[in-house]
Amino acid sequence: MKYEIRFSGSGGQGVITASVILGTAAALHDGKNVIQSQAYGPEARGGATKADVIIADEKILYPKAQHIDYLVSLTQKAANKFIKTLKKGGIVIIDGDFVELPDSPDYKIYRLPITSNTIAKFNRTTTLNVVAVGAFAEMAGLVSMDAVKKAVIENSPAGFEEMNIASFELGRDLARAAKKG
Amino acid sequence: MKYEIRFSGSGGQGVITASVILGTAAALHDGKNVIQSQAYGPEARGGATKADVIIADEKILYPKAQHIDYLVSLTQKAANKFIKTLKKGGIVIIDGDFVELPDSPDYKIYRLPITSNTIAKFNRTTTLNVVAVGAFAEMAGLVSMDAVKKAVIENSPAGFEEMNIASFELGRDLARAAKKG
Repeated sequence: MKYEIRFSGSGGQGVITASVILGTAAALHDGKNVIQSQAYGPEARGGATKADVIIADEKILYPKAQHIDYLVSLTQKAANKFIKTLKKGGIVIIDGDFVELPDSPDYKIYRLPITSNTIAKFNRTTTLNVVAVGAFAEMAGLVSMDAVKKAVIENSPAGFEEMNIASFELGRDLARAAKKG
Repeated sequence: MKYEIRFSGSGGQGVITASVILGTAAALHDGKNVIQSQAYGPEARGGATKADVIIADEKILYPKAQHIDYLVSLTQKAANKFIKTLKKGGIVIIDGDFVELPDSPDYKIYRLPITSNTIAKFNRTTTLNVVAVGAFAEMAGLVSMDAVKKAVIENSPAGFEEMNIASFELGRDLARAAKKG
């Protein structure tokens, strides 16, 4: 198996951390091969930003994401920019509070109310990225939830472990509700 | 110009953050093209970890670091593992408090007392990675110090900006002292 996952949003939303959490979970706890990367050009300033994770059972020979299986977009700008990088039949998870994408036969789309629920629970949006990781992990089922939880803790600044775990669980629950819906 | 930089150490030392700081500095503030990546296999658990930055004026076609120009190693395990990935004539920066590498005609080595100075100044080693970024930036001169400083602030958790800037400056000063010999 080999999967390519792209987290996208605006600078400062922590999409790199989201990817690192997912990558370490898959590699260190689930024993997969992982490459996590971000490419920036001069145009990155102020624009849509992305961070990629490739997860595979085998050694990954070409390290650049090319056929995105799962796209997570936290802003409209990011969704508009990266939806065309999704492979046919791919899955998109968007923050349904702020991002609009049309339905399409080319992909399956999940609209999760990420921002509104994060603010309702924590009164701030600092951990939006960890909510997104929880939502992705539950939705895709590629990595064990236990591994992701461990990686969330390992990648938390001291003192933020509890809030990050609660954020992870919020994302998981939003995805569960959407799957049922 | 094209340069490949590898930060290495043990898990939890923040070598990914060090690379992200350097990468964002070069891309967002100095207008370079950058790819920042980490590859993990199952063997990564508990072992030496690395994070790579490629900085170039031109578009980067092959995203994997192959000929490391600068290696920064914060642990002996990492130095032993990655010294062989350094290209001939490359530059190594090690934490001279804990890491030993022999002199060699194949590379130029700088031994900086990173850990002892970080503990002396902050009474803990949390920001060792940012000290390493400051040391590398001063030593290599590839990225403007002002850009790195901005990136340090942007990549700081709220409340840690001041300590991270002080750590960056400590690394810069250690490198300056070493350059003078």
